Amino acid sequence: MNLLLLSNSRMPDGRYLVHALDAIAALAAGRRRALFLPFAGVTVDWDAYTATVREALAPIGLEIEGAHRVEGPRAALAATELLLVGGGSTFRLLAESRRRGWLDAIPGAVRAGLPYAGWSAGSVLACPTIRTTNDMPIVDPGGLDALGLVPVQLNCHFTDAMPPGHQGETRRQRIAEFQVLEPGETVIGLPEGDWLTVRDGAMALHGPFDAWLFRAGREALALRPGPLALG
Amino acid sequence: MNLLLLSNSRMPDGRYLVHALDAIAALAAGRRRALFLPFAGVTVDWDAYTATVREALAPIGLEIEGAHRVEGPRAALAATELLLVGGGSTFRLLAESRRRGWLDAIPGAVRAGLPYAGWSAGSVLACPTIRTTNDMPIVDPGGLDALGLVPVQLNCHFTDAMPPGHQGETRRQRIAEFQVLEPGETVIGLPEGDWLTVRDGAMALHGPFDAWLFRAGREALALRPGPLALG
Repeated sequence: MNLLLLSNSRMPDGRYLVHALDAIAALAAGRRRALFLPFAGVTVDWDAYTATVREALAPIGLEIEGAHRVEGPRAALAATELLLVGGGSTFRLLAESRRRGWLDAIPGAVRAGLPYAGWSAGSVLACPTIRTTNDMPIVDPGGLDALGLVPVQLNCHFTDAMPPGHQGETRRQRIAEFQVLEPGETVIGLPEGDWLTVRDGAMALHGPFDAWLFRAGREALALRPGPLALG
Repeated sequence: MNLLLLSNSRMPDGRYLVHALDAIAALAAGRRRALFLPFAGVTVDWDAYTATVREALAPIGLEIEGAHRVEGPRAALAATELLLVGGGSTFRLLAESRRRGWLDAIPGAVRAGLPYAGWSAGSVLACPTIRTTNDMPIVDPGGLDALGLVPVQLNCHFTDAMPPGHQGETRRQRIAEFQVLEPGETVIGLPEGDWLTVRDGAMALHGPFDAWLFRAGREALALRPGPLALG
């Protein structure tokens, strides 16, 4: 497997996927035909979303087709060379991926070698479940199980920041709650600007910031960019 | 019906339910026997959670029993005079309320006159669905439908604040996404410190802050504390 899982799509200055260009180019490794899943988009039309991604990734020279425009996930996955899964609403992404047959079809294709790049919701979709998403459950996804391409749960856009005085639970508290219910699950809090790669079973952290490793009953551990051993 | 739906439980200084005492006393109106649903608690033991609420509401003179300690929701609801539903994880609350039979039993009891007070997750549970919660989906609730005691969706702990530079979606963006999928649904963004009451079909906003009314395709409307006409 060959995965690229980005925390997020936008730079602090608002530019789209610019920080991800080199990593996506490295994942593509000369491949040109790419399929884009826009299903996490809700307020944006899927054609428009696909066009935005096409434009953002133009410097890499990819030919990007929207997955909402193809017939049959299995044939489309067999015909493409790279899979891109965009951010937005994780619940919408999972609901539409399930309903349209992508949830069943993608794992086999990726395990057979199709490179996978996701950002935000598209990265959470690669996890065993979406139970560590930050998103509002705006639609019933028909179950929380996801693609299960990695053995860890990601919390994208991870931050310890809270608005001053705010009394809602912090991200760490929510992750701790998850691990009370699922003590065997490992969670990685991935700050904006960072990404994970998985290649031939080896996971690595990239980007400017430390990430956080959460395991039930243990202190959270800061992860430095570099190879990750999650034993 | 007689409902009290609080945005949250803690004052900015951390004191628990102090801002809600008068409103809960008014809802109780001399009733003493109360049943408390602690199922939203995850990192807190339900006995401990019940004890915390018992202590916080001691000034009102309620006799509070934990719903996890009773046999059979219908008999317990028939025997109590006031229902309290606490905050925590909305997903856990819904999952446990469904599994233990409270989800089916509560609406009839409340419609027959049992007063209902909720805070945070306990307020969202009173909505048609939990699709406007902020919480992490740490457990599969077996569907997003909730008690349906009010005809609107609440977003508790509502705030426009975001950590500086954070690229994740704002609360307003998430609510807008929900209303793209469900244009007929009204959402109220309820800031911390505020609460709604519903009595004999009349809804009112209380507390120090304006709330926000969100309807598909319209500008968000600031709601002043006072009677609400949501036509």
